[in-house]
Amino acid sequence: MKKIQPLVTLVGAGPGDPELITLKGIKAIQAADVLLYDALVNEELLDLAKAGCTKVYVGKRAEQLSTAQDQINQLLVDYALTHGHVVRLKGGDPFVFGRGGEEIDFVRQYGIPTAVVPGLSSSTSLTGLQQIPLTYRGISESFWVITGATREGVLSEDLKTAANSNATVVVLMGFAKLKQIIALYQEQGKGALPIALIQNGSLPNEQLVLGHVDDILDRAAASAIGVPAIIVLGEVVAKHQAFEQIKNEIQQLAYA
Amino acid sequence: MKKIQPLVTLVGAGPGDPELITLKGIKAIQAADVLLYDALVNEELLDLAKAGCTKVYVGKRAEQLSTAQDQINQLLVDYALTHGHVVRLKGGDPFVFGRGGEEIDFVRQYGIPTAVVPGLSSSTSLTGLQQIPLTYRGISESFWVITGATREGVLSEDLKTAANSNATVVVLMGFAKLKQIIALYQEQGKGALPIALIQNGSLPNEQLVLGHVDDILDRAAASAIGVPAIIVLGEVVAKHQAFEQIKNEIQQLAYA
Repeated sequence: MKKIQPLVTLVGAGPGDPELITLKGIKAIQAADVLLYDALVNEELLDLAKAGCTKVYVGKRAEQLSTAQDQINQLLVDYALTHGHVVRLKGGDPFVFGRGGEEIDFVRQYGIPTAVVPGLSSSTSLTGLQQIPLTYRGISESFWVITGATREGVLSEDLKTAANSNATVVVLMGFAKLKQIIALYQEQGKGALPIALIQNGSLPNEQLVLGHVDDILDRAAASAIGVPAIIVLGEVVAKHQAFEQIKNEIQQLAYA
Repeated sequence: MKKIQPLVTLVGAGPGDPELITLKGIKAIQAADVLLYDALVNEELLDLAKAGCTKVYVGKRAEQLSTAQDQINQLLVDYALTHGHVVRLKGGDPFVFGRGGEEIDFVRQYGIPTAVVPGLSSSTSLTGLQQIPLTYRGISESFWVITGATREGVLSEDLKTAANSNATVVVLMGFAKLKQIIALYQEQGKGALPIALIQNGSLPNEQLVLGHVDDILDRAAASAIGVPAIIVLGEVVAKHQAFEQIKNEIQQLAYA
C-alpha cells in the first residue's frame, strides 16, 4: 500500500461564481484526496475532484459555536494522517476572516506540512465586478477591510478609526450591524458619504443598493437586500455607473 | 464584414505566477481581439489569446509620466472602436492602485461598454502564499492596504493613521520609502512590531525578509531585497513559520 503523505492545503474558492477561482486552486482540488468545504463554496467546484475523493461538508455561518471550528481543525489533521492530501476549500480568501490562520496553526502542531492557494476576497472582487474602484488617484489612496463580526460581538474599534479616516472601507459580515455602522459615520459628519451594499455578489441573484450614509437604511428597507452582504463606504462608490441616478433623485427632491 | 462591437474588459492577472489568474480571466484573454498588457503581467498568459489577436505592450513602472496613462486611455478607445473587444490585462487587481478606475471612466465617455474581471491583489495573495494570515481572531480584525506612491510623492496621510491603528497594514509600491515608514511606526512606539518584506512574490525569484520595525532596515540591507516589494506590518507577521527563528536570534542577542 502507498505510504500516506499528509498535507493540508487551504484554497480560496473566491466570492461565489465558480469561474472566479484560480487555476492553481483548481489544480489543488484535482489533486485532493479529501475536500473539506464551506457553505459559501460553489458546489460546482466539487465536481472537479478526482474519482474517490472524499468530500466533507463543514459549512457554518457567521453565528457558529466555537466547537465547530475545533472540529474542523481536528478533521483536517485526522484526514491528512489517514488519507493524505486534504484540501480545505473556503469561500473568498482563506486569510480574510476565514480563520485559515487558526487551521494552519493547529495542523502544524502535528508536523503536517501546509500550503495556501489564495482566493479572491469578496472585499476586492465584488466591488470590482460592480466596477467600483477601491482606490482612485486623487480620491482614495487606500482601502481598509474590516470584519463586522468580532469575537466579542461588538463593533470593531478599527471601524471607529476607519470612519474617521480617508480610506475606502469595506465591512464583511457586517450587514446585521448596519445601523450601528451608519451611526458611527454620522457621528463623524459623514452623512453624505456614498455607500454600497452588495448581496450574493458574483451570483445570478446578486443585489446592489447604492446610496449615502444618511439614506441607505431607507434604501435598504425599500429593497429586499439581506445577508450575506458586504458594505462599501467611500467617495469611490460614486464611481458606480448607476450612482448618477441617485444624484439626480436627490437633486429632484431638493427642488420639489 | 462583421460589425465591430466595442467592449473594454479590465482583467486582473494576479501577482505574477500565471496560475494565479482566474478562469474568468483566462476566458476573457481567449475572447480578446486586442490585449493591452503591463510590465507586471506574466507573458505566458499572452499565449492564451486567439490567433490574430493584437498584443500591445503598454508597460510602465511606478515612476511614469502622466502622459503615459493618457496614451493608454486613448489606445483602449481606439482599439475598441477599430477592433472590438479590448482586454486590458493588468498585474494584480485592476482597482488596487491599478488606475483601472480612470481607464474605465475614460472609455465610458465614448459610450463603450466596460467589464471587469477582478484579480488577486499582491496585498492579499503574496501574504497568503507566505502563509501570513492578514486577519486572525484575537490578533487582527482588519487589514489596510495603502499605496507608498501617492500622486504628490509624499507619504500618504492614511499611512500615519494606519501606524496608529490596530490594522494589519500592507503597503504597495512603498519599498523606496521604507525608511520613512519605519520612522513613522517608531514614532508610534511600534519598534517591536513584526514586519515582512516580499519581493517578486509568487515567482521563482521570490525573496522574503522578516523582522521587526526596529531591525528590518539592517535585515533588508543584509539581504539582496529590492523593488518591487510589498511591506506587511502587524502582529500577524509573527505567524510566519520562519518567524520563530528571528525570535530565537533576538533572545540569543539579549543573553550575549
